[in-house]
Amino acid sequence: MHKVGLIRVLTTDEQPLLQLHGRLIEEAFPHLQVRSRCIPDQPQGIYDAATEAVAVPKIVHLAKEMAAAGAEALIVSCAADPGVPEVRRELSLPVIGAGSAAAALALALGRRVGTLGITAEAPEPMKRVLGTHLVAQSRPAAVRTTLDLLTESGTTGIFAAARELKERGCDVICLACTGLSTLQIADELGRATGLPVVDPVIAAGVVADYLLRRGTQNNIKLGRT
Amino acid sequence: MHKVGLIRVLTTDEQPLLQLHGRLIEEAFPHLQVRSRCIPDQPQGIYDAATEAVAVPKIVHLAKEMAAAGAEALIVSCAADPGVPEVRRELSLPVIGAGSAAAALALALGRRVGTLGITAEAPEPMKRVLGTHLVAQSRPAAVRTTLDLLTESGTTGIFAAARELKERGCDVICLACTGLSTLQIADELGRATGLPVVDPVIAAGVVADYLLRRGTQNNIKLGRT
Repeated sequence: MHKVGLIRVLTTDEQPLLQLHGRLIEEAFPHLQVRSRCIPDQPQGIYDAATEAVAVPKIVHLAKEMAAAGAEALIVSCAADPGVPEVRRELSLPVIGAGSAAAALALALGRRVGTLGITAEAPEPMKRVLGTHLVAQSRPAAVRTTLDLLTESGTTGIFAAARELKERGCDVICLACTGLSTLQIADELGRATGLPVVDPVIAAGVVADYLLRRGTQNNIKLGRT
Repeated sequence: MHKVGLIRVLTTDEQPLLQLHGRLIEEAFPHLQVRSRCIPDQPQGIYDAATEAVAVPKIVHLAKEMAAAGAEALIVSCAADPGVPEVRRELSLPVIGAGSAAAALALALGRRVGTLGITAEAPEPMKRVLGTHLVAQSRPAAVRTTLDLLTESGTTGIFAAARELKERGCDVICLACTGLSTLQIADELGRATGLPVVDPVIAAGVVADYLLRRGTQNNIKLGRT
């Protein structure tokens, strides 16, 4: 069992909501134990440059506390990877950004990646990973913050945006907001479009699981050696 | 349990060697059952353009047989992803190339990737995924084919090549030959360099596990909904 700290950038007092991303990772990766904390004073999360800038020092502060409390790896559960470079400079443990993890996993699944998030363009760290493989970007109509995703019109818009990416020739869809992970909508979008759909929270779990389990495997020896 | 077909591009009659990559994946991902077959008449594997070209139709042929026999996904266990585009055109199941899977996973772990393989430059599919994040390429001295890796001077050269990548500023090492997976040397290289080291066979397993387990998870509901 490996201890992972997960940083939410959406402020909430509700424990089920606060712990949800961590529980999704725990269910998919039984070797991981995930504890979540959120930054203060951002009840609408991160949705533009200003809300990202103000979040970064809070993320670094939380990261230090979680590392001191025994986390072996940290996940920043936001597709913009806010604070990831800053935390990496301060701490030596693995720091995983949900955005770059999702973008990376998408590249293993296809070559023409479409992003679906809450901003007109995908977050910069995702764009940097995807490079020329990023061929289309989409967002649901009438959605500005992660909270708007949780409405009925938000959900309708998400499916429309996914179908648009398919029509534009994408061969894989990369979700570009962890609010979509909260909705647990990746599988349904996959069935609706016939394309692989990458969930950023699960992608972060994939990377954490890979990193923390390496070195703990027993080697397999060939019979003859 | 999900059935995965794994295609080796090194011809061998020895079952322990033939099945080794599959067993490494099964050990890391207990939900996967991996059966391996190899292409005929290439006892030295793939190590240049000519040996790759002759392998592709054999890979497509094997892939069709394995899909017909019930494989839910296919892994081509070679860092050059030989035949992966061709198989994807012929079959509708997921087809994972060890090279692009490894390159993708490397991008989730760092931004300055160094490759370590048996050719002067990394295979094209890895270079395409890594784009501008590929900052250094290395190979052990006096190694030409995957078999040369299994000698004592091969091993010494592998560690020297890994240290060279670290000295050149890489923050993650991506192994660029699945012969290095046969050696199960990624963890040791990680300890020797202090960098995360991506094993291409395990990376292919990461992607297969992600793809095949999606859609089979139970959703987690928030307490209040």
